[in-house]
Formats: sequence, C-alpha cells, structure tokens
Amino acid sequence: MGLNITGLIPKHMENRGKLTLKENLKIIENILEQRKAPENGIDEEHIKLLLRLLSFMDTDKDPNVVQIGEREARVYTKLQRDGVFDFCHGVGRSGNLIDPQPKAPGASVMYKLTNKLLESFLKALGLKVNAIATPVATGMSLALCLSAARKKYNSNVVIYPYAAHKSPIKATSFIGMRMRLVETVLDGDIVKVEVSDIEDAIRKEINENNNPVVLSTLTFFPPRKSDDIKEIAKICQDYDIPHIINGAYAIQNFYYIEKLKKALKYRIDAVVSSSDKNLFTPIGGGIIYTKDESFLKEISLTYPGRASANPIVNILISLLAIGTKDYLNLMKEQKECKKLLNELLEDLAKKKGEKVLNVENPISSCITTKKDPLDVAGKLYNLRVTGPRGVRRNDKFGTCYLKEYPYDYIVVNSAIGVKKEDIYKVIEKLDEVL
Amino acid sequence: MGLNITGLIPKHMENRGKLTLKENLKIIENILEQRKAPENGIDEEHIKLLLRLLSFMDTDKDPNVVQIGEREARVYTKLQRDGVFDFCHGVGRSGNLIDPQPKAPGASVMYKLTNKLLESFLKALGLKVNAIATPVATGMSLALCLSAARKKYNSNVVIYPYAAHKSPIKATSFIGMRMRLVETVLDGDIVKVEVSDIEDAIRKEINENNNPVVLSTLTFFPPRKSDDIKEIAKICQDYDIPHIINGAYAIQNFYYIEKLKKALKYRIDAVVSSSDKNLFTPIGGGIIYTKDESFLKEISLTYPGRASANPIVNILISLLAIGTKDYLNLMKEQKECKKLLNELLEDLAKKKGEKVLNVENPISSCITTKKDPLDVAGKLYNLRVTGPRGVRRNDKFGTCYLKEYPYDYIVVNSAIGVKKEDIYKVIEKLDEVL
Amino acid sequence: MGLNITGLIPKHMENRGKLTLKENLKIIENILEQRKAPENGIDEEHIKLLLRLLSFMDTDKDPNVVQIGEREARVYTKLQRDGVFDFCHGVGRSGNLIDPQPKAPGASVMYKLTNKLLESFLKALGLKVNAIATPVATGMSLALCLSAARKKYNSNVVIYPYAAHKSPIKATSFIGMRMRLVETVLDGDIVKVEVSDIEDAIRKEINENNNPVVLSTLTFFPPRKSDDIKEIAKICQDYDIPHIINGAYAIQNFYYIEKLKKALKYRIDAVVSSSDKNLFTPIGGGIIYTKDESFLKEISLTYPGRASANPIVNILISLLAIGTKDYLNLMKEQKECKKLLNELLEDLAKKKGEKVLNVENPISSCITTKKDPLDVAGKLYNLRVTGPRGVRRNDKFGTCYLKEYPYDYIVVNSAIGVKKEDIYKVIEKLDEVL
Amino acid sequence: MGLNITGLIPKHMENRGKLTLKENLKIIENILEQRKAPENGIDEEHIKLLLRLLSFMDTDKDPNVVQIGEREARVYTKLQRDGVFDFCHGVGRSGNLIDPQPKAPGASVMYKLTNKLLESFLKALGLKVNAIATPVATGMSLALCLSAARKKYNSNVVIYPYAAHKSPIKATSFIGMRMRLVETVLDGDIVKVEVSDIEDAIRKEINENNNPVVLSTLTFFPPRKSDDIKEIAKICQDYDIPHIINGAYAIQNFYYIEKLKKALKYRIDAVVSSSDKNLFTPIGGGIIYTKDESFLKEISLTYPGRASANPIVNILISLLAIGTKDYLNLMKEQKECKKLLNELLEDLAKKKGEKVLNVENPISSCITTKKDPLDVAGKLYNLRVTGPRGVRRNDKFGTCYLKEYPYDYIVVNSAIGVKKEDIYKVIEKLDEVL
Repeated sequence: MGLNITGLIPKHMENRGKLTLKENLKIIENILEQRKAPENGIDEEHIKLLLRLLSFMDTDKDPNVVQIGEREARVYTKLQRDGVFDFCHGVGRSGNLIDPQPKAPGASVMYKLTNKLLESFLKALGLKVNAIATPVATGMSLALCLSAARKKYNSNVVIYPYAAHKSPIKATSFIGMRMRLVETVLDGDIVKVEVSDIEDAIRKEINENNNPVVLSTLTFFPPRKSDDIKEIAKICQDYDIPHIINGAYAIQNFYYIEKLKKALKYRIDAVVSSSDKNLFTPIGGGIIYTKDESFLKEISLTYPGRASANPIVNILISLLAIGTKDYLNLMKEQKECKKLLNELLEDLAKKKGEKVLNVENPISSCITTKKDPLDVAGKLYNLRVTGPRGVRRNDKFGTCYLKEYPYDYIVVNSAIGVKKEDIYKVIEKLDEVL
Repeated sequence: MGLNITGLIPKHMENRGKLTLKENLKIIENILEQRKAPENGIDEEHIKLLLRLLSFMDTDKDPNVVQIGEREARVYTKLQRDGVFDFCHGVGRSGNLIDPQPKAPGASVMYKLTNKLLESFLKALGLKVNAIATPVATGMSLALCLSAARKKYNSNVVIYPYAAHKSPIKATSFIGMRMRLVETVLDGDIVKVEVSDIEDAIRKEINENNNPVVLSTLTFFPPRKSDDIKEIAKICQDYDIPHIINGAYAIQNFYYIEKLKKALKYRIDAVVSSSDKNLFTPIGGGIIYTKDESFLKEISLTYPGRASANPIVNILISLLAIGTKDYLNLMKEQKECKKLLNELLEDLAKKKGEKVLNVENPISSCITTKKDPLDVAGKLYNLRVTGPRGVRRNDKFGTCYLKEYPYDYIVVNSAIGVKKEDIYKVIEKLDEVL
Repeated sequence: MGLNITGLIPKHMENRGKLTLKENLKIIENILEQRKAPENGIDEEHIKLLLRLLSFMDTDKDPNVVQIGEREARVYTKLQRDGVFDFCHGVGRSGNLIDPQPKAPGASVMYKLTNKLLESFLKALGLKVNAIATPVATGMSLALCLSAARKKYNSNVVIYPYAAHKSPIKATSFIGMRMRLVETVLDGDIVKVEVSDIEDAIRKEINENNNPVVLSTLTFFPPRKSDDIKEIAKICQDYDIPHIINGAYAIQNFYYIEKLKKALKYRIDAVVSSSDKNLFTPIGGGIIYTKDESFLKEISLTYPGRASANPIVNILISLLAIGTKDYLNLMKEQKECKKLLNELLEDLAKKKGEKVLNVENPISSCITTKKDPLDVAGKLYNLRVTGPRGVRRNDKFGTCYLKEYPYDYIVVNSAIGVKKEDIYKVIEKLDEVL
Repeated sequence: MGLNITGLIPKHMENRGKLTLKENLKIIENILEQRKAPENGIDEEHIKLLLRLLSFMDTDKDPNVVQIGEREARVYTKLQRDGVFDFCHGVGRSGNLIDPQPKAPGASVMYKLTNKLLESFLKALGLKVNAIATPVATGMSLALCLSAARKKYNSNVVIYPYAAHKSPIKATSFIGMRMRLVETVLDGDIVKVEVSDIEDAIRKEINENNNPVVLSTLTFFPPRKSDDIKEIAKICQDYDIPHIINGAYAIQNFYYIEKLKKALKYRIDAVVSSSDKNLFTPIGGGIIYTKDESFLKEISLTYPGRASANPIVNILISLLAIGTKDYLNLMKEQKECKKLLNELLEDLAKKKGEKVLNVENPISSCITTKKDPLDVAGKLYNLRVTGPRGVRRNDKFGTCYLKEYPYDYIVVNSAIGVKKEDIYKVIEKLDEVL
C-alpha cells in the first residue's frame, strides 16, 4: 500500500509519520508472517485493522463486483456487518467446514490463520497437536467428532463413563448413536469410573459385533474425578477403537494438560474444549485438537454447510489479544485462587462443623452441608452469586453416582479469570447461608 | 427509569427533552409491548438501545455479582462483547435451545422476542405457523429437523427427491441416517421428480419395515423444478410419515409462499429457510417453521448445548430494521428484476443463437451455451461476476439428472436484494463471454 | 504493506483476495493521490480505514515511543479516542492553526488533506479560492478573520450593514473591536442596506483617521436581503480596506455562489461559511475561503494554540462521503423544495387572507400573519416544528429594521437537506395555527 | 421506562432480569441524581448509555419532528454522529456558551452536568470554586478570560510576567490587547519574576491611565519558576485589577493546588487549565474556574456562537470514568515517578559530569549538557522519545531569560499518566546521547 503524503507535511515529519505507520502495520504483518499466537497480546485497534483488511478480501467487498447469486452476503444493517466483523459470507463451504470459500478469500484466510494460531498456542502450553476452531460450542463439537468416528470407523455405540453432563449425552442422541453408560464407583469421597469397567464395556460391545467409540471425560465437577484418560487411551489403542475426550475446560490448568500429554502418546482421536471456558470468548465456539490430522479433516468434512464467522473470529481475537505470556500468568492466578479457595473453605468447614470433600480437582472444591443443598444454592442465587451448585446426596444425576452419596454438598469453582475478590466474597456468602 | 434533569435546564426545555426521550423510548417499549415485526423498519440506534437494555439484564452485567462458576461469560475484549451485542452467555441451555438460561435473562428474552417477531413476520407474508430462529445455517437446521423426526417417529431413512444440494445430503450423513434418493425425470426442459416415484419409495421402505421421513425441496436452481410439496404432503399424511421441507430461500417470493400455504394444509413437520438468503443477515442463522408446535419443541430439544447469540440477534435486527412494508417492496423489486432478467436473456439468446430454458422458477433463469459452460463460468468469475453457475449437460450432479441433459447451460439468479444495475451488468458480461 | 497470505488458501483465491483488497485500498490511496473531493461519495468503511491509517502516523501510536512530555495525548477511554478518530493530539501548533504538529504527522496530513479537498470542492461549485477548514463555528471563524484584519491592516472598526445575527456582533466584541452599524431601509417588502450608506460610513471612519473593515452579510433571513457584496467589494477595493463576508450558508445555492463569483473579482479578504449548514457536519466547524492566500495564512496564524481534531475530521468526512455529484443533486433538491414551499405558501396565503412577502431569498420565505407571530411560533414549537421564526413588526432586532415593518410575519426555511415531506407538513401545521 | 418482558421468561428470571437492569440503570440515574464526580469510575458502557439517553432528548431525534430551519443538525454519516456522541447541535447558543439551546435539551443537560461534575471534582481536590468546561483549549480559553476582563473592567493592557508560552501571547494578540512583559531575574538556577516588578508594571500602567489585567503563570517548564500567585493576587486585590492565572497543568499536583488555595483568598478572576493535560482527554477542551461566579458568567457570554460538543463530552467522560479515588492515585503515582526521575537524573549527572538544575518544579526536571542541547533533543526525537526540550543558554525565549543563562540544558517531564517504564527508558536514552 502506498499512501502518498508527500508535500503535505515537511519531509522529516513525513518520514516520522511513515515510520510510525510502518511499525504499526508491522504488528499486523507479523501476525500473518509468523502465524503464531504472539507472546505479548496485541491491542484491539491492531486486531480490528487486521480483520478489516482481511474482510476487504471477500468478494462482496469488491467495488466492481456484479452480484448475481442467490447468496451474496447482502446484509441489511451495518450493525449486523460489525457483529461478524464484516465476514458476511461466514465460514465453510457446503462440502467442508474449513474449506476455503471462493466468494470469501478473506474469511478463508482468517479461519486458516485462527487454526494456525490455535496450534501454536496449544504448543506453547505443551500440546503438540493439530487443531481447529469450530463455530459451535462443546456439545455440538462433540457431535461432530462422534459422527466423524462413525463415518471413518463405522462406530455405532458410544461408551460413556458416566458424568452428569447433558451436552455429550444430547450430542450422542442428536447424531443418532446408542450410548452405553459405564457406572461410577465410590473411592473415599471421590466418584470415579474404573478403567477395567470401561474395558469390560468395550469387550461386551465388540463381542456383540458392535463398533464402540469411547467418550471419556477429562474435566468435570467433583466429587466426579477425571477419567484416567491415559489408561483409556492405552486400551483404545489395544482394541483399535476411537477415543474422543470431553475436555471442556482442559487447557486452563496444567493438571489437565499433563494428563493430556501423557494420554496423547496412545489412542486419542480428538479432544474437545470450549473456547469460552478457556479462551475468554463469548459462548459459541469450540476447539478440537488431536495428533491425528486425517481424523481432524474428517471432522471438518462432517459439518453440513456454512456457519457464522463470529465464533471463529472470537477465538482469533482471544489468541491475539491475550498472548501466551499473559495466558500463563492467568493460569498461575487461577492456581493461586484455587489454593486460596481451599484454605478459606477449610476454615469455613471447621467453623461450621462441615467438611471439605477430599476430591482431586484443580478447579473446583466441595463443601458438605447439613442444610438442604438446593436451598443453599437458591439462597446464594438470591445473594447474587452465580456458579455454585448444590447437590443432594440422593441426586443420582448430580452426584454421577447411582447409589446414595455420603454427603449433601455445595460445589464452588475457581476457574481461569476468577478474581481473588470473588473468592473472598463467596466464602462470606457461604458463611451466611451454610 | 427516572433521569432527574430538573433544574439543569429551564422547565419548558426540560419538558420538551423528556417528551423527546419518551417518544424515543416508546419505539423500544412498543417492540416489547406488541411483540410483532413492525410495519415500518426501526433505525439502528433504537435497535442498539433495545439490545443494550436487554443485555443489561444478564447476570454477568450485575454490578454486585459474585462469579464463581466455570462458565461466567468472562470475555477478554470489548471487541468480542460487541460482536455478540454483549449477550456473552449465548443462547440455549444444555437441555434445550430455546429454554431460558438462568444466567442470561436478557438473552433469553431476546431469543423469545425474536421468535415472536419471526412468527408475526411470517404471518404478514401469509404463513400462519409457529417458528424459531436457529443459531445455525440451513444445513445444520435440516439436521436438527431430521434428528427430531428420528427421535419422535423413529424415522430411520430419509427419502430425498434428488437435488444437487450438498447441505441436506451432508446433514443426513452427519446425523447418521440412510438416504434413499428418488431419481429425477425430464419434462421438456424441466428436471423434476414424479410424486408417484416418491410414493413408490415410501412404500418400498415401509414394506421393508423402515420408518421413512421425506425431505422435499422447494427452492432450487433450474432446470430442477420445485418438488410438488402439496402432493407430497398429502401422501405423507396418508402414510403418516414426517415431512421436512428444504425451503432455503422460500420466503422471498410468493410463488413459494403460495405453494407452502397450500401444502401446509396437509402433513408438513418443518420447513427450513435460510436467514441470510431471505432476511439479509450475515451467514450463520436459520429459521424453522411449522404448524406443528410440538414438533418445533422437539427440534429445539435436539440441539446439544448452548450456542452463539450472534446469529439470533442478526435475525432480530433484520426483522426490526426491515419492517414488513419494506420487505413486501423488496419482494416486488425482486419480481421486477426477474422479469427484466428474463427479457434481457431472451434478447441475448436471440442474438447469440441460444435459448432461454423453459423452466419454472421465480428466482433463477438458464440460458444455453455452445461453449464450455465451466469455461464461461470461469470467465465470468474473472470478470468479477459472483453467483452464476455453468453446468455441463453430462454433469449428473449439476443437472440433478442421471442421464444426459439436452443442453449445456448457465444459471443466473435474481434473488431478493439484487439491483437492476446488476442485472444489466451480468447481461453485458454474458454478452462478452457467451 | 505486505500481508503474507500465501499458502493459507489456494493460489487462485489468494489472487482474487489480494485483488479485492488492492481495489479497496486503491480507493483510499486515490484520495491521497488525487487530493480532490471525489465525484462519487466514498462509503464509511473506507473513510474509517483512511482515518485509521493516518492516525497510526501520530507519535502517540508509535509502539516504541518513550513519552516524557507534559502533553502526550494520554487519553483515558477508548470512547474518547473514537470521538476524535484517534487524532488525540488535535490540530494546530501553538504558533499556527494549520502548521504541522511534530508529534502528530498523521493529524497534520489529515488537516492539510481536508483543506485540499475543500478547495477542490469549492472549485467544483465554481469558486476558485484558497480555503481552510476551521475547528470553530461561524462566529469564532469571523472573529479570526477580523482579528487577522486588525493585525495585517491595523483595522480598528468593523462597518456592519445591520443584520440581526448575534454571532458576528459577539465576534467583534470578543476580539475588542468597535462596530459601526449601517442602518437598513425598506424597499417594498424587502429590508436592505444601501451601498451608498456603507460607503458613507467608510468615509466617515477614514476621515476620523480610523481603519475600517467591512463585514457584509450574504446569507440571512428575509425580509433582510443579501448585501450587494459585489458593489461593496468594489468600494473596498477603491478605498483599499479589508472586506470580510459572512456567508454562513452560502455554498448550498447558486444564487449565492454567483454573487460570490462576481464579487471575488474585487476586494474580498475572506468569506466564512458554516460546515454544518452547508456540509452536513455536526455543529462545530467552519470554512474560510478567499483568493488572498496570504490573508488566509494570517487568519491561521491568529488562532491561539491547538484545537480539537473533531470538527476538522467531520468536514473531511463530509467531503469524502457526499461527493460533488451528490452535492449538486442535493442543491437541486433544495431548489425544488424551495419552489414547492413558495407554491404551497401562496395557496395558504390566499386561503387565509395573508400574503407571501415579496422578498428575494433562495432559501427562506415569509408569510404574514394577523395573529401574534410569537404566539404562532410557540404553537409551531409545540406541534414539533423546529426552525420557523415568528417576528413582530415592531421587533427592531428581528426585522433588522429600526422603524416599524409593515407586517407581522413567519419565516420558513427550505435549506439543503430538507425533505419534501417536511415542506408539506409545515404547511399543514401552519394551516392549523395561522 | 417500562420494558414489558412478562411472559417471555419464567417469573423468577424476569425478576432477576429486571433487578439487574435496574441496578445498571441506577448507575446512570445516580449520576444525574447526585451530580457529582463519582468516587469510583464508571465503565464505558454505562457512560455510553447515559450519553445515548441524553442525546435522545435533542429535537433532531424527535420521531415526529418537522425540520424547517436552516440549521437542523442534518448530519451526513453515522461516523460523524458518533464522533459527537449524537449531540449534533453542539453546545451553546449565539448569546452564551453555557445557555441552554432550545433545539438541544439533551446537549444542554449534558453541558450543565459536566460543569456540576467538574465543580465537585475540583472540590474533591480541595478547590471550592465555580467552574465551566470550555470547548476550546488553553490558549483560546485564556482569550475568553482576557476579553471578559476587558468587557467587565475595561482592561486594556495585559501585564505578563514573562514565560516562553506562545498561547497566552497569541491569545492576547488575537483579542487585540496590548501586552506588557515583566522581565525575569536569575535566582541561583531558577528564573523567576519578582513580585515587586509586577507591582511596578501595574503602577506604571495605572499612572498612564490604563486598566491593566495581570496574566500570571502557575505551571511552566523549569528553570522558570511558578509566579508567586498568592502575592500577585494580594496586589491585584489592593489595586482592584483583574487577575487571570494560566495554570495549564495545575490540577495534577498538590504543589500547585496548595498555591491556588492560598491565592484564591485574594483576587483571582479566573484560572485556566487544560483538559487534556490534567484530565486525559484528547486535545481540544479547557476548564476555567474561579470563586467569582459572575465573572465566569461574563466569560461564558464572551464566546461568539455555538461550538462542537465533542470537547465538552470528553471532559464529562473523563470525570465519570476516572473517579476521584483513582485520580488521587494517579496524582500519587505522578509524584513517585517524579521522585524516581530526580534520583535517576542525579545518578546520570554524576556519571556524565553534569548537574541537575536546582529548580523548584513538581513535574519537570533539568539536566545540564556540555553538548549542543538542540542536537541532543534531535537525537532523542530520533530515538523515539517525545516531550523533552533542549534549550541553549542564549535562547532568550526558551530560557525565559533576557540575559545569558548559566547552562545549556535538557528538560524532562514526569506529568500525570507517565509510566515508570518511560522514566527508566528516557534515562537510558539520555545516557546514550548526553
């Protein structure tokens, strides 16, 4: 681009002006040159300019275009254009979610770039994987993975170590697969699924001439413990069956990342994480990653039609704006907040004659209650606390446990982005209502 | 709300200021009071204020909130907030797409309002139906409908009168249903599917103890004609099997609306239309409508998890900004442009020794070519014409015809929103390359 | 700028994307290359990008800057940045309004460009002049001109053919000059100032060893007629005294432009017009133009300190967005609306037994009233009509006439941008209240 | 305002939604209720909503308006509307800057509110004064004050204790007053003006039957020291002559505020401060404050015509967004940065064999240089340091001293908003070039 400003201002100022512009543009050029999540976050004005320049590549922006199709990204208001950052043609092609769309070279570059940045971001966290951003949230992303497994491996039954998460259950039902639940057992305060029980379930299905796919759970509310994904991955490798992991908020804490790193040495076809829970986007996007590039391609081919560009751009913005350095800091803060939460909960438990459950979870903690936990949760809601869950011991769905759990309890979370202030306040509120 | 401006300006100006504010707020209040697509469009500033006030109802905006969940709509940049109009919690609940989300009363109201306005908009066009806006485009919306049919009616095979539209085919594959194609026949220049052949297919499946669902096509490129949805709806009623209609751009022309009105007297479980093709939104949303409210509920229950609010808000904005009066005007203009296109194409055909195909289509026209149609399309692309399709006579996918079609041809569209200028220009370009 | 998108999308799409981007950037480059008001207006997105790139030249955007001054454009909110289009350093230097500001090369280019475009715009209307945009409205711009006249010519008294316009009177008082009013006379319905009376006033002041400057009025409400600026310019030339013209809304109608063209052959030191009244900007900017480039420089040197960039950018945006072609169309529409207004007023006058005053004015018309005109104006205000003036015959300020004017009357305006609808409506309202 | 959402969502969610909205609106209502600068800053979304609601009070937003004036705030683009926060009618009336404008009740409220908040903000800093925000920067604001002094007190000469600040000198020239400079003297490293010399100047002018007004300087670059405004105020009181203070960046440091508090007990007619230097607005606004309310009114009456709303809104935004608490914190940080600067400069001086000048200034410091200071400044500019001044000992303007100053030197500033990082970096750069 050549902005001819010669003669409008003195030469030395012209040079300074051009230099400053050049350095600003360099920030944008570097993104496309390096195609990596930056170490230091980039500010919104530069991100906006990058998106502006890319969207100026789409054919609906061509000043000389003759638009004669039935779908020409004719948008009624500027408000709507702004909401999709002027990527009015969305992403994807009827054939493939990540395929370049001839009418939208800019949106296509944007999507490809997002995936490149996502991969480098995961690499910075220690995960050497292929990855794609998806324009749908965790539930629908799981549906894509399971459907791809069916297409590629003729999978016809989902083996699901039971967790009280509706989205994977609905995803399975949506795409029309049968689900075989594997029951949980009690181990001290922990609720977990035995790997041997999963293997049994696999064996049974195979014996019935079925093709199982395992959908394991890495991140969940305690007392339900993470599935032992490494052992499951080993078994899946032995039996040669696909393995999908629901890791909704897995990349915010190294506890999960370490588990993933170990498991990725064995059979994992895809891991699904949420973009909003991990990357501070509004709800609506997901990320899928794996070492199996061809399966990722299959997943992408599964999506029927085009999709809104908004959730993809949101992921791109987060990757650019946060920067890997600050993300690591945020992870550190999350850990500190969790430590604080534990300490304060212990104090509170002592004071109230309750107990902090002895569970293994890097994000969430549970405290028992002698009151009705639903009642406690309702009171917290009215005290303007959002997020805690009150679970009755006999709520089989909530506890993920088919028999009676030993306690009524409240779950409190300290996820990435939480502020210490909120931790102190929730303890204060719990003190009022427990 | 009470803005205390007393004493800041003279009383008569205070009164005038309050009156003017009141009338401006009235515009917004009326939307929520009447819950109907307005006759005259509303400008962007008022729409923005409505969205602002609604998003101020979501709990993540609560100035006194204590956020302690794992999903708290923590968004990294204002840029991302703006893109979803600050509905950071998205829409839907894990259980149901249109269910109110306790953390997001504002987004929940917004979604409900959108659906109300959509219904009244369709009513203004003559369609008395229940309707929902979906946060996914046509292909994925069809997947939702088919999956709901499976859940409710145990449907296990999709009977598809063949059309060369990848999205419904992929939707079927995605949700794991078998598809039975019904072949097309030639009728003059027209390619169509005989209703009797569809009935045969239904009978065969039933005889094999299957539960078919029919997926008919209302809108498509000529020479493929619209399916006779009224007759199909009658047959589906007779055989008591579900009937889904792909009406991607059906609500922009009364030719289709009339067909729908007649067919809706018989068995139609759901019609899917695109929000971008009909309502001038960016790509990413869909609309589903039917007289069968309980089936609509089933569809909504099918969606796994939450979704981005962006596609829903885009539909709401269009419904508010266009207004029914202007939409009817746009429909009129579309019709005029199509008439102009036909006339100019006839002239061009005469001049070039070609023929305008004698097809029945209110949006698109076909002109034969003695040149290689792919070559012609390529040249048009380079001349900056987006949208036309060049189809070779032996391209069975493109022609939707398994034998050889009599002509090579080019399809040109005159969809809603097209400008006369574009019609003139495409003829000019065709003149260059044919 | 080089955006490296190679390898992210197929080569043919890459080429198309780059071509489309290039054509979009060309629109921006052309502005800086040609430095002329475009014939066809440019859309907001391109204007925004131009402003973005220019503001990225200012040193406060330098990613490597060390800011150690007492004025470093540290701005608290993005909201404020946006309001000045990120030209946070404003315009001007302590020494000169249009001097380049070393800290703000981008803002300096922007200002220079605005003035270039302004000159070409005025040229397109037939005025071959030098021009500057000012960051202050008409009144303060007149103050700049008069003060510059004092500095350059030792002017110490302003000869003002009387018009009831407070701004020039206050401008004169503000900069501390004496004003000598020249009284109006009645000529039929018209109130005007005799050129010979102006000459007398000049002579008297000169005889008293004063240095007069004439401030004539080109645009005003009837029945006050425009001053005969050509004859005044001749006299000023003969007596060698400066001549400033208040032409607040002079460039919207060729009646005024023709007068200016003729007068510019003689002595005119500066003409002041409003940016909001002529160029559809928000209130706050002005334009000053003249054939006397050195006097324009003097005016610019008169401004003490820097100023907000906002009014200047607003003028630039209007010049880019409107385009000379559409401006000429708007002028045509103004003329048609005025014709319509005259016709409807004549009808109304007949009906009501009133009279349309026989004045000479291309923008405004007067109708007599037998009621109290202040009362009528008050009623119109309550009927939500903004703009009309009700003047009593004995209101010496309002009529610009020191004796009693023959009629009570209402002034109605049909300025550029008025809609026919408003003309019809105001007649309707007048019918109610007259 | 009543947003009827009943029936759209369950009652308990409706209540929560309404409560959250109410609390958000409360934030806005409180601003108008309390009319005070808030202790804790308010975020941009709430500020935007406040501005939106106020601008919806202006008559150009009246949905039923008939616009028939020559100035109807017809604005060509949304871009321009946004830049003035939709206050398209600007501020002021032809008669008075702060008078309510009948066409713009909203803008009038906005302006009045700004002034109220400004007064409470100054009060929080310890200054009990009346205040107005002005839509022009320091230089033009001084012109308003001096012109008002002329109008009210027939002042005809400005007594100016010499400082090398062009704006006040140009302001005086602009409004056509004579300036009498009072020379500086050397006191150690300090350059200052003796109060007795000022008194002499006053006496001389009075003896010549003139009416002097004193324009003293509170904030300036060292080695020029602040004028002793308390003693000057006493003298002005004794001689009964007006006293204007140029306090461009006076409200960011208690050194100046304390001086002001003491001086305000005697004769001060007006103090002028910059909005950008103190309140983090873009350049373009000013603030004028005094205990003499009637003189403030006179100043306001001096402004000829209307003005852009943008600089006023910018001041309002800063007052709302910063909050008094954070402003006090920023003042504290400024003080710490200045301390750091002094320490680092002392070290550097020792290392380089230079000297930190022994001046009295809470914002800026000087270091001597054996090199050509202009050369040093040029090199710093090229090293991307903005703000430092290099002054040669014989530069009478730069040193504010008519004889030769003992040293060549560099001035470095640590104004409010500076970051410690910048302090370290400038020392590093100085180390390179000194």
